[in-house]
Order: sequence, then structure tokens, then C-alpha cells
Amino acid sequence: MAPQLDGFFKQVDNDAGHYIERLRKAVAIPSISAEPARRPDVVRMGEFLADELKALGASVELRPLGDQPGHPGLELPPVVLARYGNDKNKRTILVYGHYDVQPAEKSDGWATEPFDLTVDDKGRMFGRGATDDKGPVLGWLNAIEAHQKAGLDFPVNLLMCFEGMEEYGSEGLDDLIVAEAKKYFADAEAVCISDNYWLGTEKPCLTYGLRGCNYYSIEVSGPGADLHSGVFGGTAQEPMTDLTRLLGSLVDTNGKIQIPGIMEQVSPVTPEEESLYDNISFTMNDIHESLGSKTTIFDDKKSTLMARWRFPSLSIHGIEGAFSAPGAKTVIPAKVIGKFSVRTVPNMGIEKTNQAVFKYIEEQFAKLGSKNTMKVYEQHSGKWWVASPKHWNFSAAAKAVERVWGTQPDFTREGGSIPVTLTFEQATGKNVLLLPMGSSTDGAHSINEKLDKRNYVEGIKLLGAYLHYVAEEPKV
Amino acid sequence: MAPQLDGFFKQVDNDAGHYIERLRKAVAIPSISAEPARRPDVVRMGEFLADELKALGASVELRPLGDQPGHPGLELPPVVLARYGNDKNKRTILVYGHYDVQPAEKSDGWATEPFDLTVDDKGRMFGRGATDDKGPVLGWLNAIEAHQKAGLDFPVNLLMCFEGMEEYGSEGLDDLIVAEAKKYFADAEAVCISDNYWLGTEKPCLTYGLRGCNYYSIEVSGPGADLHSGVFGGTAQEPMTDLTRLLGSLVDTNGKIQIPGIMEQVSPVTPEEESLYDNISFTMNDIHESLGSKTTIFDDKKSTLMARWRFPSLSIHGIEGAFSAPGAKTVIPAKVIGKFSVRTVPNMGIEKTNQAVFKYIEEQFAKLGSKNTMKVYEQHSGKWWVASPKHWNFSAAAKAVERVWGTQPDFTREGGSIPVTLTFEQATGKNVLLLPMGSSTDGAHSINEKLDKRNYVEGIKLLGAYLHYVAEEPKV
Repeated sequence: MAPQLDGFFKQVDNDAGHYIERLRKAVAIPSISAEPARRPDVVRMGEFLADELKALGASVELRPLGDQPGHPGLELPPVVLARYGNDKNKRTILVYGHYDVQPAEKSDGWATEPFDLTVDDKGRMFGRGATDDKGPVLGWLNAIEAHQKAGLDFPVNLLMCFEGMEEYGSEGLDDLIVAEAKKYFADAEAVCISDNYWLGTEKPCLTYGLRGCNYYSIEVSGPGADLHSGVFGGTAQEPMTDLTRLLGSLVDTNGKIQIPGIMEQVSPVTPEEESLYDNISFTMNDIHESLGSKTTIFDDKKSTLMARWRFPSLSIHGIEGAFSAPGAKTVIPAKVIGKFSVRTVPNMGIEKTNQAVFKYIEEQFAKLGSKNTMKVYEQHSGKWWVASPKHWNFSAAAKAVERVWGTQPDFTREGGSIPVTLTFEQATGKNVLLLPMGSSTDGAHSINEKLDKRNYVEGIKLLGAYLHYVAEEPKV
Repeated sequence: MAPQLDGFFKQVDNDAGHYIERLRKAVAIPSISAEPARRPDVVRMGEFLADELKALGASVELRPLGDQPGHPGLELPPVVLARYGNDKNKRTILVYGHYDVQPAEKSDGWATEPFDLTVDDKGRMFGRGATDDKGPVLGWLNAIEAHQKAGLDFPVNLLMCFEGMEEYGSEGLDDLIVAEAKKYFADAEAVCISDNYWLGTEKPCLTYGLRGCNYYSIEVSGPGADLHSGVFGGTAQEPMTDLTRLLGSLVDTNGKIQIPGIMEQVSPVTPEEESLYDNISFTMNDIHESLGSKTTIFDDKKSTLMARWRFPSLSIHGIEGAFSAPGAKTVIPAKVIGKFSVRTVPNMGIEKTNQAVFKYIEEQFAKLGSKNTMKVYEQHSGKWWVASPKHWNFSAAAKAVERVWGTQPDFTREGGSIPVTLTFEQATGKNVLLLPMGSSTDGAHSINEKLDKRNYVEGIKLLGAYLHYVAEEPKV
């Protein structure tokens, strides 16, 4: 039976101005986690959230995480843990978001003051954190409030976990999630994260997969110190010569990874999957626009989406230790470290991929016949994540999208990583859904970040509707 | 007839302490040309030199060079032009040196205060500029003074050109040399520059050749801005992929340049030249020590010296625009600029070399089949220089070395460039001699720069003796 949502929706429409004011208050707090001097603002933002939640009747804890690693005396902002409802007859859903933001200064090129929410005549609400992730976080609070004002029963018990260090590596969070999996989060039956974006600007999506990332360094060293290329050029084996030859052997211009043992691990494309991509709302024009150029590897949508979501890729990021400034310097760098990473997909193994990478690079280096010293090692790695989009958590979200937006959502993956997703899945053992509020043009992390008023208001309805449908999904 | 030098030598030995005090005063002035804030000290050093020269009876001019390019309001330090003697019956010799120094701070790792000349029990005189180039510059002044005190006739008319921007690209100097070639420098019959070093620590040398340098940039660009490798990896052609493949195609581990049309321009080795290298005082141990490793391309002295002096080399210096910091960043850089240079030798042409480089890189890039944009261009170039070591200027210097040091000098070239050498040769049309005072372990540009007391005192004798022998060489 379809849930009764009209009263809730009407209340949301009525209170839209109030929700925008709430977002304005949140945006006004410059909770930049990357800047230690802004730490008091991050903490203030956590307290603002806690106060709002308490006013709504939630039980709230501000969990300290200790000092920031490498910054003795600088305390990490607290994690806001909250529970709204404790009815044994209702499902319990755990939602995650973050209340910190990326750095922003007007002088970076913003058209408006980044911490002063500014709504233009197209309904675009500009402000740092509007879409990433203060809008979605407040979405949950607004949904609770709308139920209260409309005199409606809230359909689930809601557990909330809002952190303040997401834009700086979520320091301290993983340990807390693992520690609370069987405590604070013990009765969570599914997880929902609203911290990503639609693939385009018109069609909502549900996200069920993310690529992993293995990040590598290749270090080549020879001389005891940097040398002058006039004095030593032609007489010494140069680490940069070796390193550029190694980096040049990893991948070709069309993205084909040259390392044996990588593609062999990738799940074959099934006939069922083949048909998935055609219906996705995405055009080559979209990617050309995002790139700011037409330098795509493929000319068709399907190959492009598959390359982004379900095939591995290899990117060379840069070199540490070489001359990197503008101008000219005639140095022979003594020790150089090339950085590259492999985006991983099912069913690639982290360790198996490492072994393939190490073996290949060692073989390539041996071919050079160099007296220099080469080391290749993993800097960090994170596993890919793919959830079952057939789980009731996704079915409920799909029904909510159809009800709110009048269209079926695209089921998408993403090429990047949101490491907390996998942490929640592994720690709780529950299905995790990524349910985006904003769209692809919101410019999270960029200047002029915005959230469309439409996406905010309909997004509040979507989060609430999702919880109603979740409540009605059959037990499995 | 061998010149009478005993009286001069005795005077130098007697006054050694006084010369060291003069060097101490000069080292105490931190005339760092690279640091605009130190400009008054550089100017003060020029004035110190001018005052000392005037006290010796030289006519002196401080020639202004206008503002430093790119630094409006920051005047370049003056060139000290001086003449000592104006006797039509004597030869006129032009000498060059510089009174500015490299940056230095004790905290860089100096064992002593860099601007406080400190003499240890082995007679090593530590201080910034001791060997590069204040010691040699004062050598000329000390030689004049010793003649005066010993009541000896000075054997030549001495023209002096001492600049204050050598360590920062000799800004403004080339124009002055060209402008004064037929004016202030009009009667110069040969040029002598004391601003380089012995090949080792025991055997003096005369230097008659330098390699040139063509410095290149390869710029590859694609996307409009840096991209996230999670979102775009596998779908966009990455400039770093193309650039590392191009850089990796330039030269192999053993220094073999892969660009056709470079080696073809190199003068063949003559049988006469073949025999030159065996007698040079240099061992593989010397280069292993300078390198701080055994990662040499060759295992024998002759190949190593030829590779340094008379063959071209190609070094890759670094990449601008890529990730170059420690740590990990998952960026796809949008525009990257690879930097490399080719050291040039007789009879390579700058333009011919450029054309070979451009053609090769354009061909390699075409093979990649990339949609990215590639540009290759020359950043700067300087021609190689080789003088005739059979000129009377060199013969005189060789006799002076034998008289002072009791051994015949090695005739050497160097792998690096001293651009002013070629400027003097081309502007005056006269033979240029490089007559070093210090030794290979002096550490010019490094921490703990020093000049051995022996090299300073015998060096003063050498500069004076050279002028006496020059006076006696037959007219040609």
C-alpha cells in the first residue's frame, strides 16, 4: 500500500522559506575542516546541529575524537550521534552526512560571499556547503520537523551520524564506526548516505557502486645529492630518465593499462548489464562540458560510462623531487618519486593488483639496465564497493524518487571513492544506499557551489518519502 | 727570456696575512644577488672593490645597469670597470670576475658562519664567496699591490670588469660588454677569466672549452581544469600520460640520445684528441666521490671525460603543473610542462638542434594518437665555446702554472656553461682563457664553500706570473 505522503509534502512546501533560513544559518558558519584556525567554527557547526536536533526532540551526543593526528593540541571536531525515535515496531535506519566544508574565499573567484547564502532569480542557492553537505544533512532535520508540524507519525527510528572532518580524510571516523557498530548503531537495518550528486541535472539517480583506489609511488634514486646537468650530464645515470621511462610504460593515451594481470581480474560484462547503460540520462555533451574539452577517450555514452564505473583506470599524478616550478633549472634530480593510482573494480583484489603492479614495474626497470635504485610501493588503498540495487533499501528509494520526481531513477555507480560507504557496509553488515540530493552542476569543492532550491525542497520530500517506503518494504 | 718573478713571489708570501684579511672583509659583505633585500649589500660590495682599486691607483667607474628586469624600482648592482696602467708599449689584458655570491645561511648546514671567514688548521678558508668568486677577484688586486710594495714594474695594462649579478643570470652584463667592446675594452688583446675550478685537487688546469645548452619545454594540455581521477579516470585522455611517454622517449639510461640529427652534428674524434685524455689528472674515484654514488654510465676515465666535455647529453629536469608535493593526491593535471635540456658541443648548431628536437617530439606525439594539445619550444639557449689552447694567451698561462706549481697544467674543457665567456669572445674577437684558482672540492654554490690558503696565495702568484709571461709572448 502506497504511504500517505500528501500532508508531509504540503508541509514541506509551506515551510520551504524556513528550511532555506535554516540552511542560511548553517552556511554562515565557516566550518572549514582543512584549516586548523577554523576549528572553532567547525565545532560551532557541530553544536548548531546538535541544538537543532535536540529542539526536535532527538537524543544527541557530541562524541570527541581526540587530537588530530600530527596536530598535538588541536582537537578533532566531535561526531554528532543522534537518535530520533525508539519504537521496537519500526525499522531503524542509519543516515550519514558531514557538517564540515571545503575552504572558500571570495577572492578565489566567487561571484558572491561564499558564507552568505545567496539565492538568485533561477532559484540557485549559492554558498559553501549548500550542496556538500549541509543541504542534505539539514534535509533529514527538515523532514522530521515537517512530520511534527503536520502531526504525522515518523515512519522509522532514525539514527544519525554527522561528522566534521569529511573534507580532510574523515580523520577518526572509521574507528568510531567500527566501535559503535554493535552499540550505538546496533539496531540499524540499513544505511543511507546523502553526499553525492545526480549524474546530470534533470534525472535523479540512486548510486550502488564506487570504484576503489590503489595509490602507488615509484622511487628512483642514484646520486647522493642533486647534480648540475652541465657538470654531470652524460656521465651519470639519471633517476629522471629511468622514472619517465617507467611512468611512460604504464598506460597508453587511450587509457589501456599496460600492466598484465589487471584487466584479467575484472568481472566480465553480462548481457543483462549491457542493456543498463542505454537508458541512463547522460550524453557525450555532458562529459565534454565537465571536461571543458573534447579530449575524451571514447565517442559514445556507453563506453564512457563503463570506463568510468566498471573498468579500472590508471592515472599518473606527478613527480616529487624533480624541478616543478615555472622557468628553467638545469638540475639532475638525485631522487624522484613518481605517483600514480589504479582505480579498481569488481573483482579486483588489492593485494593481487599490488603484486601485478610491482612485478611489472620491477621487470620494466630491470630492462633498463640501470645502476640506480628503484623502489615501488603502495601509499594507500581502498576497496571498490558495489551494493545490491535489488535490496529493499534501494527499492524503497526508487519508489520515493518516482513519487517525488515522477520518474524512475537511474541506477548509477561512480568512478571515485567515498571510503565511509565501505566502512559502514563492513562494520554494520547492512545494505548501504547513496541517495543524492543535488545535481551534477552544483560545483561541490569549486567556486560558486550551489544547491538548487528545487533540489533542496524536493530533496527534503525525497528523504522523508524514502523513510516511509522503507517502513513498508517487506521484511526479508 | 723567463721573467724575473722572485721579488713578486716573496712579497706575496710576506703579505699573505694581509690578503686573507682583505678576503675576510669581502666575505663579510653578504652580496647575495638573488635576494632583492640584499641588494644594498651587493652595491656595498661593488663600492668596496672600487675603493680598494682606487687606493691602488686604478681609474675606476661604477657603471649603472638600470632596473632589474621584472623588478621595477630595484636597481641592478653596478659593474665595476677599472683600468690599471695605460702604457702603449705594454700589452693590455682584460680580466673578468664577479663580486656577488650565492645565498647562504648557517641553518642550511654550514659548520661555520658563512659570512665570517674561518680558517681551519688545514688552511681551509671557509666562507661564502671565498672561492666563487671573491678570492680570484681579489687575486688581481693583491697582485697589483705586491708589485707596488716590491717596487716592481707591472707588466701589462690591466682592464677589469667585475659584475654583481653573475649568480642571477648576469642580468644587464651582455649589453654592456657589447657596447664597450670597441670603447672601454678597445685595446684589450686577450681576456682572462678566473671563475672556475681545477678538475681535481692537486693538478692545476687551463680551460679552453665549455658545452652549450639548449633548454626545452614540452607542454601538453587537454581538459579545461585539473580533474578528479576517480570521476574522469578512464574516460579522458590525460596530459600526463602523453607527457611521460614523450619524456621517456628522449634518452636511455646510458645517456644515448634517441633524437635523430643530434649525434650527427658532433665533430668526429681525431687521433690527436684520442691521446689527450690519458694524461689528465682524473680518476673514476673522483667522479664517484662527486656523485656520492657509483651510478656512472662509463667505467673508464676517458669515456667519462669525453662524455662530459665533448659529447652532447640530454637531461630531464622535471614537470611543471603536475602534483609535486609529498603525499598522495588523486589529480589528473590539466596542463603539464616537461622540462629538459641538451648540452651542445662543436659543431652543433642551436637552430639545427632545435629543428631535430621539435621534429622528433612532434613525430612521437603524432604516434600517440592523442586529442590533447602539444607544444614544444625552446626556453633559452647558449652556444658551446672552444678556444685555441695554442694561442699565446694559453701558452703564457701554461708557463705561469709551471713556474708557480712546478707542473704542467691539464688542458681541460667543462661540461657546463659560463655564458659570459662566449660573450667576451664574440664581442672583443679576442682569445679567452679560463684560469682557475680554486680546486674541485671548494664547494662553490654548496654549504661550507672554501678556498684553500695555498690556492689563494699561489693563485695570486699565478695571476701575476701569467701577466708577466703574457708580456713576453711574441706578437703574432
